[in-house]
Parts: sequence; structure tokens; C-alpha cells
Amino acid sequence: MLFFTQCFGAVLDLIHLRFQHYKAKRVFSAAGQLVCVVNPTHSLKYAPTRCAAAQASAEQGILPPCHHHEAVHDPQLVPCTCPLFSCPWEGHLEVVVSHLRQTHRINILQGAEIVFLATDMHLPAPTDWIIMHSCLGHQFLLVLRKQEKYEGHPQFFATMMLIGTPTQADNFTYRLELNRNQRRLKWEATPRSVLECVDSVISDGDCLVLNTSLAQLFSDNGSLAIGIAITTSKVHNAEAEM
Amino acid sequence: MLFFTQCFGAVLDLIHLRFQHYKAKRVFSAAGQLVCVVNPTHSLKYAPTRCAAAQASAEQGILPPCHHHEAVHDPQLVPCTCPLFSCPWEGHLEVVVSHLRQTHRINILQGAEIVFLATDMHLPAPTDWIIMHSCLGHQFLLVLRKQEKYEGHPQFFATMMLIGTPTQADNFTYRLELNRNQRRLKWEATPRSVLECVDSVISDGDCLVLNTSLAQLFSDNGSLAIGIAITTSKVHNAEAEM
Repeated sequence: MLFFTQCFGAVLDLIHLRFQHYKAKRVFSAAGQLVCVVNPTHSLKYAPTRCAAAQASAEQGILPPCHHHEAVHDPQLVPCTCPLFSCPWEGHLEVVVSHLRQTHRINILQGAEIVFLATDMHLPAPTDWIIMHSCLGHQFLLVLRKQEKYEGHPQFFATMMLIGTPTQADNFTYRLELNRNQRRLKWEATPRSVLECVDSVISDGDCLVLNTSLAQLFSDNGSLAIGIAITTSKVHNAEAEM
Repeated sequence: MLFFTQCFGAVLDLIHLRFQHYKAKRVFSAAGQLVCVVNPTHSLKYAPTRCAAAQASAEQGILPPCHHHEAVHDPQLVPCTCPLFSCPWEGHLEVVVSHLRQTHRINILQGAEIVFLATDMHLPAPTDWIIMHSCLGHQFLLVLRKQEKYEGHPQFFATMMLIGTPTQADNFTYRLELNRNQRRLKWEATPRSVLECVDSVISDGDCLVLNTSLAQLFSDNGSLAIGIAITTSKVHNAEAEM
């Protein structure tokens, strides 16, 4: 009996997934674009001290020290970059992706252009929607966060981080695009490095920011479809030199 | 002596204008694009009752009644659409533009693509930056407003309204673009009709919304350059029919 109940549940889940996928396809109507349904996770950690240390190190071009083992520290090691959990793991930058996949079960998608379909936008803040995106030989972390910067007024913040150094991140441009109800919103920027910490990017507001009313206009049945594209930025230093 | 002082002031103003113009040109680097320096104005009116009435009428396809003469009212007349002042003027839609130019001294610019350069972004809310834009045989009103929706947290709201009916407005798409510091933000939407009232568009948040931190990232020396383009929308009903 339990077996049949579970089977029925799985079939219902599949139908729901298929329906979400169809909706995202309709919104973006781009044949061949991969649509990824991303379910929300309640954020369990907000550890600003760790982030502040990581950011200070990143700005100085040093890999950040781990706050768990401050006495003896290998500068080649980075702490876990998962924005969801205060995780004691540390390792080399090259193995961060496999740690995020295996320990935090964050999905990874391939392709230059994908659609990120965040479900259950109505859930109370703080909530995160996270995937990894593999593209142009690198891995990126896409974070959509619902957070109350001003009490009682939740906002949505979306950003893309390179799982790499700030110098590597400077070689790319990412684009987030919302398109629905005869409205279109595009945000283009250089991704930050995960060493700079997603929490500080969001608290600085240097990302795509949506008020609840705008998020509702772009949502379809409680789900928000975000088109994502990553390109290499050829002239990224031109403006900085001016 | 007074004559020389005034002359010197005028020359300084011209130099300042030229400098602002040069800055906006550099940001957008599009030869031939008209740059308009727009100075801020403190908003003197917030009259939600008038707006609510105007919007309700617009939704029903009727020209809005004037709250100043409710007893005897000509339905062909519309109240003044200037978002700055509670103005007792009313007249036909065709003469709204000349009223706005003559009485409220709002500038009008020609061209399919222009750059709106709002100065003194640091001024406290509520503040408005307003111009009219003549394009494709119609006139549009561009409003940038700094307003505190949440006390102590001013935000910037930018929208474009057609000086015409909602049915006429459905034929156009407007685009607002910010581009600076390796970041780009684009908002595209169908303009609203001025009969729908700019205050309600902004309170609904159905426009380009910028937090102070993002506005600072896009500003240059206290001025914000917004690229504006208007096109005719051919497939504007396709999505609505789905």
C-alpha cells in the first residue's frame, strides 16, 4: 500500500514538474533552451563575520582564511561557499563544485543560455533559490534570495557568482532577464567571485533587485522564470582604464 | 556691474551644461543622440483621491472627471496631467502638451532615442525630474521620482506615460536603459496613458525601480543618465490573447 502511495506521489511530482517546465518554455519561447525548476530552501545561516573576513581577503587578492581553524591555516584552502548553511568544510577552489553538489545537493546545469524557474515565490523571507551553471569552461553559482532589508517589505535579489577568483570573474558578463506581461527587465554585470561572499553582494544591492509588486508582475502562478546568459567580456578593462 | 555678474553666471551655467552633456555622451557613446540635462523639482502635491478617480475612469474607457467642478462636467475635458502640482487647469487632451510647456515649463525633446540626464540625485525625497519626449507622432511624459515608500529608505522610480488614451498607449513600447561601471539595467514596457495617473503607476511599482545603492552605482558625480527609446509594438496583443 505504502509502495503505491509513493508511486502515486512520484507521478504527481513528475506531472507538476512537466507543467512548470511547459510554463517556462512558453514564457521564453526559445527552442532548445534548458529550463531548470528550482525549489526554494530556507536559509539556515546568516554569518556576516565569516563573509566580512572572506571579502577583505578577496579584495587583497588572498584566498580567505577559514574562521573555524584560525590558528593553523593553509592559504590554499577556501571555506564552503554555499550561501545556505554555515558549513565547517574547507578545501581547494577546484573541489568547491563537487562539495556543493554532494553535500548541499545543489544542481548543476550545462549550456550557454538557460532558464531558471524559481517556484513558490510566496514563501516568507529569508528564502533562497540556488543552482550552479556550467558554461564556457567555468562553474557559476546563481542565487535568488527573498530577504527583508526593510522590515515587513521583502525584496528579491538575484546575482551570479563565479566559482573562481575575482581575476577570473572579470573575464565574464552575465545577464539575467525577466519577460512577462509586456514587460522586460534585463540586468547585465560582471559576476563576482564566490570568494567575495554572496551575502555582501546582496546587502550592497549590487545585483538585480525586485520589489514584491514587480516580482508578482513577472511571476506566473507563483513561479518566476529568469533567463540566464553568460558571455566572455572582451572590453572589460576599457571603462576601468578611462 | 550687475550685468557683468549675470553674464558670468550664464557662462558658468553653459560650461556646467556642456560638462554634463559631455559626461552623458561618454556614458552612452552613441553619436547623434540628444542629451537633455534635467534639473530636479520638489513635488508640491500628493493627491491620491484625484488619481484614484482618474484611474477608475481610464479603466472604464471614459475620460476622467475633474474633481474641481464635480457638479457640471464636460467629459471631453481632462485635468492637468503635470505630476508636480495640484493644478486647477482642465482642457482637451490635445492641448495638455502646450499647457505643460507653458504653465509648468516642462521641456520637450524630439528624437527616437534620447538621453535623460537627471542632476542632483542626492536631493531629499520627494523630488521629481520631468521632461516631455516627442516621438513617432506622439508626446510622452518621462517621470523620474525619488520617493520614500518605506520611511528612511528613498527609492527611484522611472516611468514613461503617453499623452494620449490607454488604447493609443498600447501601440508603443518604451525602453529605459542605465549603463555604467560594467553594469547595465534595461526596463521595457508599454507606456501608460497620462489619464491613468503617474502616482498610481509608481505606488504599484510597475516601473523601473532603483534602490539608492544601485542608483549610486549608475550615477556619475551625482547625475544619472537614462537612455530612452520608444518603438511601436506590433505584437502587443499576442501575449494577452494566450
